[in-house]
Amino acid sequence: MDPLLHEPHHDGSPLYLKQETAPLGSSVQVRVRTHADRPADAIWLRTVEDGEPFFSPCEVEHVDGTSIWWTGQVHVRNPVQRYRFMVVEGDSFRWLNQAGVHDRDVTDAHDFRITSYDAAPAWGRDAAVYQIFPDRFARSAAADARPIPDWAVPAQWSDDPVHEGPITPLQFYGGDLDGIVEHLDHVVALGFDTIYLTPVFPAESNHRYNASTFDEVDPLLGGDEAYRRLVDAAHARGLRVFGDLTSNHTGDTHEWFRIAQADPTSRERSFYYFAPDGSHEGWKGHGTLPKLDHLDEEVGRRFRDVVRRWLEFGLDGWRIDVANMTGRRADVDVAHRVAREIREAATEVRPDALVLAEHGHDATGDLDGDGWHGTMNYYGFSFPIWEWLRDPWRPVPSFGLPVGVPRRDGTAVVRSMREFAASFGWRALGTSWNILGSHDSPRIRTTTGSADLHHLAVVLQFTLPGVPMVFAGDELGLEGTDGEDSRRTMPWQDQETWDPATPEVYAALAALRRRHVALRRGSLRWVHVGTDDIAYLREHPLETLLVRVTRDGTPEAELPGVRLVEKLYTVGLSGRSPRATVWRVRL
Amino acid sequence: MDPLLHEPHHDGSPLYLKQETAPLGSSVQVRVRTHADRPADAIWLRTVEDGEPFFSPCEVEHVDGTSIWWTGQVHVRNPVQRYRFMVVEGDSFRWLNQAGVHDRDVTDAHDFRITSYDAAPAWGRDAAVYQIFPDRFARSAAADARPIPDWAVPAQWSDDPVHEGPITPLQFYGGDLDGIVEHLDHVVALGFDTIYLTPVFPAESNHRYNASTFDEVDPLLGGDEAYRRLVDAAHARGLRVFGDLTSNHTGDTHEWFRIAQADPTSRERSFYYFAPDGSHEGWKGHGTLPKLDHLDEEVGRRFRDVVRRWLEFGLDGWRIDVANMTGRRADVDVAHRVAREIREAATEVRPDALVLAEHGHDATGDLDGDGWHGTMNYYGFSFPIWEWLRDPWRPVPSFGLPVGVPRRDGTAVVRSMREFAASFGWRALGTSWNILGSHDSPRIRTTTGSADLHHLAVVLQFTLPGVPMVFAGDELGLEGTDGEDSRRTMPWQDQETWDPATPEVYAALAALRRRHVALRRGSLRWVHVGTDDIAYLREHPLETLLVRVTRDGTPEAELPGVRLVEKLYTVGLSGRSPRATVWRVRL
Repeated sequence: MDPLLHEPHHDGSPLYLKQETAPLGSSVQVRVRTHADRPADAIWLRTVEDGEPFFSPCEVEHVDGTSIWWTGQVHVRNPVQRYRFMVVEGDSFRWLNQAGVHDRDVTDAHDFRITSYDAAPAWGRDAAVYQIFPDRFARSAAADARPIPDWAVPAQWSDDPVHEGPITPLQFYGGDLDGIVEHLDHVVALGFDTIYLTPVFPAESNHRYNASTFDEVDPLLGGDEAYRRLVDAAHARGLRVFGDLTSNHTGDTHEWFRIAQADPTSRERSFYYFAPDGSHEGWKGHGTLPKLDHLDEEVGRRFRDVVRRWLEFGLDGWRIDVANMTGRRADVDVAHRVAREIREAATEVRPDALVLAEHGHDATGDLDGDGWHGTMNYYGFSFPIWEWLRDPWRPVPSFGLPVGVPRRDGTAVVRSMREFAASFGWRALGTSWNILGSHDSPRIRTTTGSADLHHLAVVLQFTLPGVPMVFAGDELGLEGTDGEDSRRTMPWQDQETWDPATPEVYAALAALRRRHVALRRGSLRWVHVGTDDIAYLREHPLETLLVRVTRDGTPEAELPGVRLVEKLYTVGLSGRSPRATVWRVRL
Repeated sequence: MDPLLHEPHHDGSPLYLKQETAPLGSSVQVRVRTHADRPADAIWLRTVEDGEPFFSPCEVEHVDGTSIWWTGQVHVRNPVQRYRFMVVEGDSFRWLNQAGVHDRDVTDAHDFRITSYDAAPAWGRDAAVYQIFPDRFARSAAADARPIPDWAVPAQWSDDPVHEGPITPLQFYGGDLDGIVEHLDHVVALGFDTIYLTPVFPAESNHRYNASTFDEVDPLLGGDEAYRRLVDAAHARGLRVFGDLTSNHTGDTHEWFRIAQADPTSRERSFYYFAPDGSHEGWKGHGTLPKLDHLDEEVGRRFRDVVRRWLEFGLDGWRIDVANMTGRRADVDVAHRVAREIREAATEVRPDALVLAEHGHDATGDLDGDGWHGTMNYYGFSFPIWEWLRDPWRPVPSFGLPVGVPRRDGTAVVRSMREFAASFGWRALGTSWNILGSHDSPRIRTTTGSADLHHLAVVLQFTLPGVPMVFAGDELGLEGTDGEDSRRTMPWQDQETWDPATPEVYAALAALRRRHVALRRGSLRWVHVGTDDIAYLREHPLETLLVRVTRDGTPEAELPGVRLVEKLYTVGLSGRSPRATVWRVRL
């Protein structure tokens, strides 16, 4: 039997934590499961309150087969209340924290967390998100009638993107919002319940991250009226809609920036960082993306107006671009204040609004508070999955690194996933986006180099904690070697080029996730971690599922004590090929 | 050859970091050493600036024997600038951060750090600190003439402390400041250059952590005049003097609290947390230690007056009691502001003042900024050393845990030490106190159960990065099973009870540390980590030392490539017994 099944376990899921949001001053019941084959002599709960550790004993609540359930009470003294367990075995003890069990002293970084702030809305945690890059998704007939703007370099729908050089941001395919409306049934058929659109504000680029205004939708996309039609059509189909807002910068054509630049005495001048010589600071040195100074509180007020306005219009949530840099510059760091204020503004007008932070790297410390509900979890999800399932036969381009994606073993990548997961609270983890690729990265099909490995990655995306976020086209097996190249148009006209198996995998897994609460809210227990095969349980009071994935056909490890009840899903052939299976099991 | 010697290395010491304090906007040269037997194909420097990772290439600077020295430039964009290295080997890479080398993705928690804030004063980093608990250290003749206060339960100097029950804080031995003066030569002879006195303000207890005022020294200790004599006598011998200040609470007999309690309209009322029923909040529920509310900025002003006043009087630094809880309560956390303001006040009147934080646990996040220079490093130093060198034959009492100290292997404790060290910056680590015991914990002699293991612990205390802080009496081999029991009086009258070997070990190691800059400022490279034996290099441009410690006489591991030049110190017998050796070596 794999010893992982004997390890003590706790996480923030309903089996283990009675109440995931708890007011300050309250007590919350927590449970630890130990295994009869490795019993503990005692378990102590350690909380850190006001900066000081406190211990209280846990007691055995009941015994259920081989599981021994211990229980304790966490005193919620602080808004993000940290705790861990001391598992006493003979004259020694191990620490149990969110990263696992440790036979040595560990810092507080991976302690469990209960927060007293409201959870993200349920829809945002249960969602399956489909990402649309408007210029490349679909063109309505109306698009043909629109004049091509001066800055644009027109492209045919079937052209490949120019992914290097000055033309890249200017290459204009002319996708529009009514085009999206026409294909919402595709999105619904795949089983997604949320669409996330990259920016729709006017801007002199195809990506529109350099907004000229936040007050209207780009007429090239069909304007406010088309946005109205899209939001209504989406809602009519039960789809939620996410917007995309750049809080770190605007475009240099933005109305605020134009005033600021033209008039050094203007109110807007202090929105940006102007040097004495009149030059200004831009995102990563790009002058077209002037960085905003959030020390000027008027910037925040204007932003919050934008946040509220479009939620009132009908958006369900915002993805906040470059959230990791927003409000951070040299010796200034007001990032948390900005996050809190944006969230407050959002929930003022829509109590169930969701704000999700783009983070180019480790988001530890920016979550679990009263700010961002979750993040785009590249470092804790995408990177490990890419490393485990990358094409074994040729070099694979990476995202944000100066070298390609290394190939790593299951033991290495699971350890990384556990550590990154533990650096968020459980709740923030479950609200964050599991991404296999986006408009900023290579496509997963290119990373994996095969449909087989791509499909395994999708299994992990939909069955590990977190919200699957799929870049439109991934479900068709589109390729792309970098973010620009990945912004290929949807080949609606060439359906014979689609890999027919791949959309089915997405649809089946989206349905599975929707049907099984254990995949959305259940506990995560790693029960086997090998070089080439991994297995984990998702447990919920209503059901227990087992997910097994083998990247090279290595026979699945024996898991005595886990009774397979029903095969819910399988992908890949048996024998020596990549495959994954989802089972309903009993312990 | 032990593969640890082949690992790439970097830390904050002079061989690897050109300039340890760097102004914002500057660039600092960093170096990485790799070994010819495991060469890297490329090394990339990764900084995180304004929340975003940036990569720049390192280059080979020179080759020196088996060492290949790479160099890069860290752009100091943020006040605590984080960085790490990507070591490219073939088509994969490993991360190098302050915790070591990792064959997988790791969070930013252990990235290296350069800070733009001033370093702690050199004296505080090079110090060897001797801790004195005034009631128990020594009585001058003048003490006999002083009346015993009403609250006190008098004890004879030869009595053992009552270490449980209500008498514990009241048992009064009558040690005084002139008693300390009489024994300063003992301190100097041992090689210490700094004395740290637990509180000397009047208070109705023997520990005086419940001050009645911060404005005068307890007359029972000899008052301000005796303090004057002590500070002058210490300085005359080249000793620095540390005070001890409770910033988290006062005593309930404190003049501020008396006013606050008597008069709800007083200015002092809001210094504390009074409930509507007139009750007040105390440290860990102790009503005698009313907690201060640092949201009231007048509290900070009064404190800063105290901080300044006694530094002007002659103190060289402050140890801040319960710093980990100061300014933290429920949803309030102004701990960093308080730390910054106390440090500012201290350095205003003495640019070379040092402020050191008591921390009952993981101090990550409370160091490296513009606040505390360092901490009492129980979690990152004391705990691992206790676990490795504890008495193997009987249960050992712990400090702050509900169970005894477990016995752990060298691999486990070194990993913990590396992680805790990495959760501080290198500079904060070197300024923090390496503690084997204090007035709050069991005595190291009791923990180790033998002189042999005690002496090994002292070797580690004086040769690992950090400032050795020794509780008076440890050098005599005094015992104590908990903090109260450890507050035994110094047996000046019974010198035949002293273990004569133990003071010699302290004196030799203090001298060694003073003589060898590598022990104070050198790099730390772990070169062998086994269950029962460990070895590390302390490297400095001027010299390289090797420290080898075996807890059970396990023969020292072979370290080919390390040429032993001169044995500088050894303790323990050869053969199968605990022993440690410090060598001067060449690589």
